[in-house]
Amino acid sequence: MIKNTKVNAAIIIIGNEILSGRTQDTNTSSIALWLNSIGVKVNEVRVIPDIEDTIIDTVNYLRKVSDYVFTTGGIGPTHDDITAQSIAKAFNLEYEIHNEAFKVLEAYYKIGEFNEGRQKMVWMPRNANLILNPTSGAPGFNVENVFCLPGVPSILKSMLGGLKNKIIGGDPILSHTISLKTVESEIAKSLTNVQDNNKDVEIGSYPFFQAGKLGVSIVIRSENQIKIDKCSSEILKFVDEKKIEIVIR
Amino acid sequence: MIKNTKVNAAIIIIGNEILSGRTQDTNTSSIALWLNSIGVKVNEVRVIPDIEDTIIDTVNYLRKVSDYVFTTGGIGPTHDDITAQSIAKAFNLEYEIHNEAFKVLEAYYKIGEFNEGRQKMVWMPRNANLILNPTSGAPGFNVENVFCLPGVPSILKSMLGGLKNKIIGGDPILSHTISLKTVESEIAKSLTNVQDNNKDVEIGSYPFFQAGKLGVSIVIRSENQIKIDKCSSEILKFVDEKKIEIVIR
Repeated sequence: MIKNTKVNAAIIIIGNEILSGRTQDTNTSSIALWLNSIGVKVNEVRVIPDIEDTIIDTVNYLRKVSDYVFTTGGIGPTHDDITAQSIAKAFNLEYEIHNEAFKVLEAYYKIGEFNEGRQKMVWMPRNANLILNPTSGAPGFNVENVFCLPGVPSILKSMLGGLKNKIIGGDPILSHTISLKTVESEIAKSLTNVQDNNKDVEIGSYPFFQAGKLGVSIVIRSENQIKIDKCSSEILKFVDEKKIEIVIR
Repeated sequence: MIKNTKVNAAIIIIGNEILSGRTQDTNTSSIALWLNSIGVKVNEVRVIPDIEDTIIDTVNYLRKVSDYVFTTGGIGPTHDDITAQSIAKAFNLEYEIHNEAFKVLEAYYKIGEFNEGRQKMVWMPRNANLILNPTSGAPGFNVENVFCLPGVPSILKSMLGGLKNKIIGGDPILSHTISLKTVESEIAKSLTNVQDNNKDVEIGSYPFFQAGKLGVSIVIRSENQIKIDKCSSEILKFVDEKKIEIVIR
């Protein structure tokens, strides 16, 4: 059972390429790991197509039920990049040239290279706040609690650091993993007991099959290290009693 | 702009491990590629936590707006595996021992190994239809248009083939990719023209940065090969005029 922390977020992955299976999303993991480190828990992720009405409806729903919303994708220069215009409509704002973004890109490109295609990337919702892009120039932006980032994973990652002052998180979410050479059914009952004794800690059990090894990783998550340590010692107690081999602790 | 085919699906990824960023989801891509091959388009993916009410609400919404719904995760033997009981509640069905599943697992395990933990995996919504599992025994199941699969990617993949007779798709969704040594801004206007001329074809533009190469992949998707070929030749025409190098066509 998951418990919400005080600060939560939703992620919206905008892109037909994920829905078609052509591309595997890795942005969820990058954003979620970073958010956890600053005390924000991801409650939900939605992957949606490049359809304006769908983007508007999804943003308008999630921005009301979440402290923060992150979108990825759809802020480039091509016809299928419709995130900025959709966010403007979601917030009922003008979609227009953003003067600061224009200056950023004018300075970024060599003379003559800031062409019509690239100029599309400075169209944003009125008064959007820029999120600077140290990798490829074109900024992301936020309107209120909705933060719009690019879809290219390396560029997205490079922009997360610059968000730190804009996101106010709670206590960092800590985790501890114990990997065992066993099968889930062997530990299910004992692990249920530990979860029942520690209801406000999130305990996950994940079988793994890799490099010829078969095992189970138990992941304990909480904002409170003392609670994690208590769970961990209760787990290690039954692991010892059952004489299960520990792979990583 | 995406156009829906006649047959669509939604995917629900159930699992705190994806929301925490610890694990990258790969099941979306496996399911989507397979569905596309049998003429089913994925309209939406939601990643949700292991919370019963969230699973129930998400399933009950998506099963009404989608032809098919696929869930992954939460059907193992541990305390955090709550998909089967949640699906039972979503459909207002008894959650009980499934006799056929019991027989399957009784035959799968050696005598004495079909223990209490494993027996949890035969609890399902009443009259659920089994989805056989050639990899690790424990079956998935479906109730009406909701298909519940495990979260472990290799096991999930091995079960997709067995679903073929249960899913009635439309025309397979075909795609063609043209990869160019260029940047998006260079082709944005020409590509918009091709999209405008071919409104019922989905044209996506995806920058790539890999192995030191920088380029753009244009992906054309439709159920109609003739329409794909027409788009492709229109794209190759402007590529030739602009003297852009083709990496893959």
